[in-house]
Amino acid sequence: MDFSGKLTECWRASGSRLCVGLDPILERMPAAIAAGPRPVLAFNKLIVDLVGDLVCAFKPQFAHHAAVGAENDLAETIAYIRARWPNVLVILDGKRGDIGSTAEMYAREAFERYDADAATVNPFMGEEAVLPFLDRPDRGAIVLCRTTNPTAALIQRAEVAGEPLFSLIARRAERSWNRLGNVMLVVGSTDIADLAQVRRVAPTLPFLVPGVGEQGGSAAEVVRAGPRADGQGLIVSASRSILYAGSETAIRRAAEAVKAELAGGAPVLAGGPRVMV
Amino acid sequence: MDFSGKLTECWRASGSRLCVGLDPILERMPAAIAAGPRPVLAFNKLIVDLVGDLVCAFKPQFAHHAAVGAENDLAETIAYIRARWPNVLVILDGKRGDIGSTAEMYAREAFERYDADAATVNPFMGEEAVLPFLDRPDRGAIVLCRTTNPTAALIQRAEVAGEPLFSLIARRAERSWNRLGNVMLVVGSTDIADLAQVRRVAPTLPFLVPGVGEQGGSAAEVVRAGPRADGQGLIVSASRSILYAGSETAIRRAAEAVKAELAGGAPVLAGGPRVMV
Repeated sequence: MDFSGKLTECWRASGSRLCVGLDPILERMPAAIAAGPRPVLAFNKLIVDLVGDLVCAFKPQFAHHAAVGAENDLAETIAYIRARWPNVLVILDGKRGDIGSTAEMYAREAFERYDADAATVNPFMGEEAVLPFLDRPDRGAIVLCRTTNPTAALIQRAEVAGEPLFSLIARRAERSWNRLGNVMLVVGSTDIADLAQVRRVAPTLPFLVPGVGEQGGSAAEVVRAGPRADGQGLIVSASRSILYAGSETAIRRAAEAVKAELAGGAPVLAGGPRVMV
Repeated sequence: MDFSGKLTECWRASGSRLCVGLDPILERMPAAIAAGPRPVLAFNKLIVDLVGDLVCAFKPQFAHHAAVGAENDLAETIAYIRARWPNVLVILDGKRGDIGSTAEMYAREAFERYDADAATVNPFMGEEAVLPFLDRPDRGAIVLCRTTNPTAALIQRAEVAGEPLFSLIARRAERSWNRLGNVMLVVGSTDIADLAQVRRVAPTLPFLVPGVGEQGGSAAEVVRAGPRADGQGLIVSASRSILYAGSETAIRRAAEAVKAELAGGAPVLAGGPRVMV
């Protein structure tokens, strides 16, 4: 299935815009798991089992695995998601950014070694950092565009002939990079005006939206300003507010609450009512 | 030893500005090594043995290891460099760029898991992507500033109040991030005017300079425009033009040639004549 088909399917099957990030932290996971064998894999599986029916995507975060030498746990987590929830999109969040044949090595890492459906990519080194991720019709690149943290704006709003960098990146992504329909943008939820501007510049691209919850972004505003004209186009990620919510019941309730907040405003189910924004 | 001491020592002990990048590619390495056990590690060791006396630094490139699941080979390569050439700086080239506790996980990956002396860092997500790499006085961050490839300029010359982004990053690095003396900048050799501008804005920071050789940068121009007032401050990397030069003799001759080109113009040996630029 090509990447845009996978996207349609992940939204349709789940009826959800929620993506849960897998950021395993030994010090914060349940003590019994942290003390047991392969704690990173065991914690990831716990989360995948608990909330897999509530999400359109899982987003394993690379550094949280690499810092503790848990590459095999990362690979097995992804294989586990595929077996358990075959319609859920798997996003490897490594924010890779290099050029030419090195970028191609990163694409091989994400798509062949780890078998992710999509990988986050950093465009600071230019178009040549992005293009090698776009050669596979069934795999996607999610390009950093406008991120959530306070000091990101200084860089991402720098101007080229009067246009902010984040807008220029969105325009290139929409008009030039998306030949195979496998480009998405990372657009944070903490500055809704900028998110709305990206939507104007890139009307057809799906967004991966971090920042809802812990970082202060509003789910209601994202659902108002973020969807495409067809009402779809949003994968909204939350990580620690769900992973470390407490008991298994609390984890599931936290995911249900974010899923419900994100369902407002526009449909996520194929065949449901369409909202034209 | 703190990071600036390691830098002084790597230049003094080697009398060289050359850094050899370790980009192991199975298809390009000698067939006998590629067909043998642990080819990535074996090829890296061959290079480290062959040119270790000619370099101030080795720069293992992360993707070339990760794409083939060779993390253990990467770790053993770094341990091998330390044992064989204890004064040579080890730069892990992963161009990581994320924020907050995720950036701290990447710093742990580079400095604890792999025991690198320095790591390349991507500043697209702002200052918060850089600062977590600066907490260890004996480890350095090498921040992408102005890279060599054709499409990088569009992003890196975007302007903030009339100042190009690469200059703003250099200024922040010089004035604000370098409290522990452990910040360097990646400044490519293919645009010498921009390199000279970075040197004016960041007079004390060491540069990691890619692009000499295969990408068309001129060693003579880098040596003229790049050094600090004390004549030091340059680590110039070459990778495939050396790694894949041919026979063992050809590899060593290629490294000797670049080392010699980089020695011109300004001293790299402590106690040698100083050039005030």
